[in-house]
Amino acid sequence: MQQAAARQARLTKPAGSLGRLEELTVRLAGMTGRIDPPLREAVVFTLAADHGVAAEGVSAYPREVTAQMVLNFLRGGAAINVLAREVGARVVIADIGVDAELPPHPQLHAVKVRRGTGSITRGPAMSSEEANRAIAVGRQLVRDEQFDVALTGDMGIGNTTASAAVICALTSLDPKLVVGRGTGVDDEGLERKVGAVRRALQVNADSIKRGTIETLAAVGGLEIAGLVGVILETAAMRKPVIIDGFISGCAALVAAKIEPAATGYMIASHRSHELGHGAVLERLGLQPLLDLDLRLGEGTGAALALPVVRVAVRLLNEMATFDEAGVSERS
Amino acid sequence: MQQAAARQARLTKPAGSLGRLEELTVRLAGMTGRIDPPLREAVVFTLAADHGVAAEGVSAYPREVTAQMVLNFLRGGAAINVLAREVGARVVIADIGVDAELPPHPQLHAVKVRRGTGSITRGPAMSSEEANRAIAVGRQLVRDEQFDVALTGDMGIGNTTASAAVICALTSLDPKLVVGRGTGVDDEGLERKVGAVRRALQVNADSIKRGTIETLAAVGGLEIAGLVGVILETAAMRKPVIIDGFISGCAALVAAKIEPAATGYMIASHRSHELGHGAVLERLGLQPLLDLDLRLGEGTGAALALPVVRVAVRLLNEMATFDEAGVSERS
Repeated sequence: MQQAAARQARLTKPAGSLGRLEELTVRLAGMTGRIDPPLREAVVFTLAADHGVAAEGVSAYPREVTAQMVLNFLRGGAAINVLAREVGARVVIADIGVDAELPPHPQLHAVKVRRGTGSITRGPAMSSEEANRAIAVGRQLVRDEQFDVALTGDMGIGNTTASAAVICALTSLDPKLVVGRGTGVDDEGLERKVGAVRRALQVNADSIKRGTIETLAAVGGLEIAGLVGVILETAAMRKPVIIDGFISGCAALVAAKIEPAATGYMIASHRSHELGHGAVLERLGLQPLLDLDLRLGEGTGAALALPVVRVAVRLLNEMATFDEAGVSERS
Repeated sequence: MQQAAARQARLTKPAGSLGRLEELTVRLAGMTGRIDPPLREAVVFTLAADHGVAAEGVSAYPREVTAQMVLNFLRGGAAINVLAREVGARVVIADIGVDAELPPHPQLHAVKVRRGTGSITRGPAMSSEEANRAIAVGRQLVRDEQFDVALTGDMGIGNTTASAAVICALTSLDPKLVVGRGTGVDDEGLERKVGAVRRALQVNADSIKRGTIETLAAVGGLEIAGLVGVILETAAMRKPVIIDGFISGCAALVAAKIEPAATGYMIASHRSHELGHGAVLERLGLQPLLDLDLRLGEGTGAALALPVVRVAVRLLNEMATFDEAGVSERS
């Protein structure tokens, strides 16, 4: 990190003029132990699962969209596919809990822990054992890939409701400050979402008191738990992980509770349009690179941030220094 | 624009979930008349010139850095070179007013209007005829290139002072609200800058009253005027122009005063760290894509935004629609 900061100061530009890109290269040096960490092999881990709470009018879209979108991912027609092609990343699609029997496909990682969660408004989403299993699945997905940098992504109708519940449980923030419109519910839908999160927190109050995994199991989701595993395993490998938006941010918050050192490997890609995302980033101590009012998930924000991360490292390593270029320093 | 908006609504994503990328594709359709405008050939027009006011302690760097950085550009060692390589853009380097005899170089466009400007604190920076000539030079640079999208860039020690003076003159904002630290002056340097801009506005008050070109000539700079030409000519060609930071924003403001329709072709790349940039963007009615605390110029912010612009168009054109993918629409 010292080497990266020292080199930033010698490059032919006013000190600090590359703004947040400079601190990013210093952080990347801390993560990887190198001022020129490789970032070529990028993998987006897009995990899909269903949510029992989706039946309660908390989403603008019907629940079958989760499975339909997985098929869209496999055909390359979704936003994350287009983005991954453009930025040069591979997408790993995993069914960690879709409530449908998806046909086998060479690109689909069939790692279902269970078919969707139970509704968080009536009891726990899943058991703690299932949550731990989903985390382990996420870790294994990471171990099975060759990559330099991981990106997180999600698909799951209802998952902004579950994420909001987890965030409220872990931060004690009121649901009104965390629950947003997700895929685009109207005012009534938003009220239903806030109500659902409140009920979920009450119904599962005992589990929430017991600890982080118990909270994740009680009011979270299978793809959220899987992403916790993706983040923890990537951090354990001392590799950077680019965190997508609200759902991934929720997973990052859980990962940070389990292993605080993991935050050192997280790069926040963007500030989501979703209401509670700012509070999550603040608690993680992360400042996002982009602010484009995105609220799509899938890993789209993370993929958009990847070129910025790559170019920051390239600037540090390829720019000439004042000495090399014969440029005068500050007078 | 209607076609672009209609297609955005049919793509497999919640309506509006691609945030600012959606409005960007609609604007690009308006500029080019196509929902799939080509954006492959990108040219960064990086114009360099010196400023008489640089001798008055308004910059953290000595004036000879302008010429030295032009040589750095030609050797490919500057930030804009690294960025252009990464994002796939060409850099056109033009000496439109460097106060040095630069050796001929196949990559250098020798289009000097004069060797630097006079100090704006003592009189006009240049004559109106010279300002018009610099604008014409910028227009010609654009006509000489084959490109789909133009990016603006600048190099000129002292040019945040001149830009601040132009912005204050055109907006009637107080220099305290516009003058920033540029390359990184200390508190005393900042006071000197504010004082210099105040004097420039007083000394040149009569010229400023006469009109936009006269204001540009009186308190502006040669690279700023050249960029006005780059922007006006690109807009006249109905091609998009990605505006870099503070200096380019100043040129964009001048261009908009000369030809209000030109703003329709401008894409604001980033929110510069420089104090007065927000006011410029607000007056242009543009919202920047990135906010990374950059304050380097050269076209670096514009180059960082290029991949975002490209991917927005690619998303609009390559994503599957609900029909194509068999995904259910809003319930």
